[in-house]
Amino acid sequence: MVNETQHSCSGSSSSRSDGSSSGSEGSKDSSRCSTPVLDADRHERLREKMRRRQEAGDKWFSLEFFPPRTANAAVNLISRFDRMGAGGPLFIDVTWHPAGDPGSDKETSSMIIANTAVNYCGLETILHMTCSNQTKDDITGHLQKAKRLGLKNIMALRGDPTGEEWEEEVDGFNHAVDLVKHIRNEFDDYFDICVAGYPKGHPEAESYEADLRHLKEKVFAGADFIITQLFFRPETFFKFMKDCQAIGITCPIIPGIFPIQGYHSLRQLVKLSKLEVPQEIKDVIEPIKDNDAAIRNYGVELAVSMCRELLDSGMVHGLHFYTLNREVATTEVLKRLGIWKEDPRRPLPWAVSAHPKRRVEDVRPIFWASRPKSYIYRTQEWDDFPNGRWGNSSSPAFGELKDYYLFYLKSKSPREELLKMWGEELTGEESVFEVFTCYITGEPNRNGYKVTCMPWNDDPLATETNLLKDQLEKVNRRGILTINSQPNINGKPSTDPIVGWGPSGGYVFQKAYLEFFTSSEIVTALLKVLKKYELRVNYHIVNVKGQNITNAPDLQPNAVTWGIFPGREIIQPTVVDPVSFLSWKDEAFALWIEQWAKLYEEESPSRMIIQYIHDNYYLVNLVDNDFPLENCLWQVVEDTFELLN
Amino acid sequence: MVNETQHSCSGSSSSRSDGSSSGSEGSKDSSRCSTPVLDADRHERLREKMRRRQEAGDKWFSLEFFPPRTANAAVNLISRFDRMGAGGPLFIDVTWHPAGDPGSDKETSSMIIANTAVNYCGLETILHMTCSNQTKDDITGHLQKAKRLGLKNIMALRGDPTGEEWEEEVDGFNHAVDLVKHIRNEFDDYFDICVAGYPKGHPEAESYEADLRHLKEKVFAGADFIITQLFFRPETFFKFMKDCQAIGITCPIIPGIFPIQGYHSLRQLVKLSKLEVPQEIKDVIEPIKDNDAAIRNYGVELAVSMCRELLDSGMVHGLHFYTLNREVATTEVLKRLGIWKEDPRRPLPWAVSAHPKRRVEDVRPIFWASRPKSYIYRTQEWDDFPNGRWGNSSSPAFGELKDYYLFYLKSKSPREELLKMWGEELTGEESVFEVFTCYITGEPNRNGYKVTCMPWNDDPLATETNLLKDQLEKVNRRGILTINSQPNINGKPSTDPIVGWGPSGGYVFQKAYLEFFTSSEIVTALLKVLKKYELRVNYHIVNVKGQNITNAPDLQPNAVTWGIFPGREIIQPTVVDPVSFLSWKDEAFALWIEQWAKLYEEESPSRMIIQYIHDNYYLVNLVDNDFPLENCLWQVVEDTFELLN
Repeated sequence: MVNETQHSCSGSSSSRSDGSSSGSEGSKDSSRCSTPVLDADRHERLREKMRRRQEAGDKWFSLEFFPPRTANAAVNLISRFDRMGAGGPLFIDVTWHPAGDPGSDKETSSMIIANTAVNYCGLETILHMTCSNQTKDDITGHLQKAKRLGLKNIMALRGDPTGEEWEEEVDGFNHAVDLVKHIRNEFDDYFDICVAGYPKGHPEAESYEADLRHLKEKVFAGADFIITQLFFRPETFFKFMKDCQAIGITCPIIPGIFPIQGYHSLRQLVKLSKLEVPQEIKDVIEPIKDNDAAIRNYGVELAVSMCRELLDSGMVHGLHFYTLNREVATTEVLKRLGIWKEDPRRPLPWAVSAHPKRRVEDVRPIFWASRPKSYIYRTQEWDDFPNGRWGNSSSPAFGELKDYYLFYLKSKSPREELLKMWGEELTGEESVFEVFTCYITGEPNRNGYKVTCMPWNDDPLATETNLLKDQLEKVNRRGILTINSQPNINGKPSTDPIVGWGPSGGYVFQKAYLEFFTSSEIVTALLKVLKKYELRVNYHIVNVKGQNITNAPDLQPNAVTWGIFPGREIIQPTVVDPVSFLSWKDEAFALWIEQWAKLYEEESPSRMIIQYIHDNYYLVNLVDNDFPLENCLWQVVEDTFELLN
Repeated sequence: MVNETQHSCSGSSSSRSDGSSSGSEGSKDSSRCSTPVLDADRHERLREKMRRRQEAGDKWFSLEFFPPRTANAAVNLISRFDRMGAGGPLFIDVTWHPAGDPGSDKETSSMIIANTAVNYCGLETILHMTCSNQTKDDITGHLQKAKRLGLKNIMALRGDPTGEEWEEEVDGFNHAVDLVKHIRNEFDDYFDICVAGYPKGHPEAESYEADLRHLKEKVFAGADFIITQLFFRPETFFKFMKDCQAIGITCPIIPGIFPIQGYHSLRQLVKLSKLEVPQEIKDVIEPIKDNDAAIRNYGVELAVSMCRELLDSGMVHGLHFYTLNREVATTEVLKRLGIWKEDPRRPLPWAVSAHPKRRVEDVRPIFWASRPKSYIYRTQEWDDFPNGRWGNSSSPAFGELKDYYLFYLKSKSPREELLKMWGEELTGEESVFEVFTCYITGEPNRNGYKVTCMPWNDDPLATETNLLKDQLEKVNRRGILTINSQPNINGKPSTDPIVGWGPSGGYVFQKAYLEFFTSSEIVTALLKVLKKYELRVNYHIVNVKGQNITNAPDLQPNAVTWGIFPGREIIQPTVVDPVSFLSWKDEAFALWIEQWAKLYEEESPSRMIIQYIHDNYYLVNLVDNDFPLENCLWQVVEDTFELLN
């Protein structure tokens, strides 16, 4: 880590020249204090990440998905992205389905699925694109749209013939190489370009050698790396790789791995890709073709052993998996290979987006902690982050959230399940208290169902919140309906498995935070209690009409999470911001209606109970500023209940 | 502190309107994280400060000075500004001496003294300006210059007649009211304007009543407040104030207080101002007129008793002192009145400048900690602070420091005194080590003189550095020549009398810092030792030629002082910035020559010793990133010495 920088300034003369030259490289271009380059990954393009991993000797993997057919399947696929993203793929890719209107705004289109992966799941993503049967203008339009959405990588493909025989198009593209050239012509170096390699030769090529020459053309036209078609024997790949190198292809070549997951899917795939399954595999599979589990086990075995051989050769640094949108087999292969890495370390305490313009994003209001996709959605029009710290009147405001139907904002659970969790019939505010309490405790509700999500949090309770479980249970039972909280932390190592984030060698801190809905009766008592705590506790209390009570000085943000790291400026990624709280308030209150009340018939008693809470409760947030002392927020709540008795 | 803000947005609709309206008032207009409004004082204009103090019932004082005649006297006056500024004056004012080329760039001009007070001493300052015998253009020029220098307040005066009789100027100004109008015409509301009031009537006025009418004209032309001529009896002021109010003057009227400090100065003043000394005062003074101490004691008594009466009346909120550039009498009066307030609390850990464009300045490199005036000088051309965190190539670089002769950058001590402290004759590098050691310990040197300043620090050791005294002594003896250091602090209250800063209720933190010159031999050993500490210790090591060795990642700044406050973002006012370190290096090395070597004859052995150190030593800075643990920097130095043995 020692940089010996020689500065050529002579004697004690001005350092203007060396001062600014060394600075322009190493420092950032604004005076904001919270954007030290925390995570080189966020600032590199895919080909640089690949190179860095290779140089460091790190093995990596990537995952291929196809766009779903239905909106529900899209919701499931996005959850899968989140789950499989946790294993640390270098990238995912989304195939291009010409029949499915792939460049449209439909929630099942290739374009929108890739957009969701990048922006809402924070995954480095390659969008496939085929060029046959499309005009140049169509393709340029798709590429422009991809760029606008923050996509940085394209897999350039020819696409399959529409009829039996291939027909040359006069005004279009006939080969993938045309698309590569077009991208480089029209978009310069903006995109990283990937092309396909065929270890057995493309089925339509005149010969294996001719196909290699086509591949070389694609690379020399500007492709950055190659992903291969699936194959069944490691030798196939080794031969291919050597042949590529022999004719001067030096870019990374990533083997495509297909873990066999079932008899029928294998048959269909080989038919489509015109590959031949080796006899030794057929011999194993045919006798067990009706036993899905046995075939999958065999498929995993086979994939693991082939991958091991590939990695051990030293020629392969990354593996590309054809997942067929399935999770189990691929995950198991990766885990057995030891390259599935659920890294508990987080670059920041919240899930980052992979959109290039959000690379510098380094601070968010705490309110959306459990709804990061909604936060990204509502701030997608911002040109910079964090947007003049939200308060600047010349900066764009939060977008309205009227699009609760958007597949990446919808609850993962269907209506029937939600009714089981939140109650088929509510009998009063207490029934609501009970739902909150069951969510906290993890105990089944009176009908025997566990409450695994809430309108404000589509996932089970965070590990960190578990630290507060007992107290949370107590207060929810009594009508302090908590939706967000964090404990105070006075300097834990940044590598702490529960509250740590950022590079190692640092210390993380938190102020205790508590956010809840509660009745106006409780608010009245609470305000009396809060007087006693003076400036130790900052509070914002607001109802759906926007009546707002606060003791925050000058409406400034209050930093509630920050980290101190070696050789860096302070990083403060989470704040309680009074201005954005009013935008969050709209969303938090609307979720009562959109996600909960609307489960019930209009005019039904259950619906009216939720409507009553929506109309009359307050949303409260409390910060205990004295982070080195014991969290006083529980005492505040305790005092409030006492005052009420 | 409770703001009940009613927001008029209806239902759960977008908060765009109330979000941005409340934000535009309360939040700041950039996304920088370290500019929470820490100190309202820094952002208010003088008349607002006055009003706020009055509303809060706080009594205050201000101090009047005249420009000095010689450069040496200017150096002394600036030190006096620093010392008397510590008592907390609401403002100081600098008189305008038409005979002394008051608007020029001379170090003794009114303009430059006021500039120094504002920019280098951080004092709210009123510049006097007279209008007689000058053209409109001259005056506009002076005002423009004052504005450019960051002066915000003008005392508008007519000025004394040049001859015996007053002569009206045709194309100029004949009365102070003309100047007030001119300022308002040409500069709108930019300046706060003060005018003079004469409790006994102006000596040249037709009558007391006519003079009151002139005063009213000045106020109605746009003056913000009035400072009175000196007077000897409280009744004089009370009558004047009531008469002012009776004719509709409602702005603040500040009584001018003149503590009698000597027989002759009193006589001269009354002659100039055509005032009459009351008989009861004459009766006391005449008999003791040759006893300076007795007269001063009497003067202090008299002033204290008059001030008490003024303050007790409830009509007076602030007192203006005619200091005659003297310190003792005024300070004693103020201390006895209890309004001299040496506030150990600092808004930031470094001395802020009062220039309006530096209001948002919230972070500085630690290097100039003991040379804040030099830092201000070298960054005076910057348009914004902290100037793209120093590293942006498009932002202006640090100015060169070739102007060591500037009176506010010069050592306060004359050459002879410096020679006594730093040695009439040096016999080797060890003599230099000894000087550093004596400075740290406070013990006299071998010739019996205490070393109270060094080229890098014109003041005795800071209280905070005292915490490290023993260790510092040890290492300086052995050739680690320290020029800057701070201990690590892991969350002390912001009100801590030694290391505290910022508003109360917060916590302050520091990383341990050590900066020193040392030989290349020691540097070689040090680098070996530092390897063992890896990223725990960040270092920058540079020689005069700019050869730079560092382990700082990406040349990012390292925050070494920060504070956490209720309801605010993190504040990180001090950083170790690799880029500006190279500008500091030039200055730090040059000080060896400019301040020390040049005390000796050219070619003399003493001069050659300093020159040798300048040419061959390294400047080193070390940061221990593990602020919660015991400071390891002493161990680093210890290990280095051990390695050398």
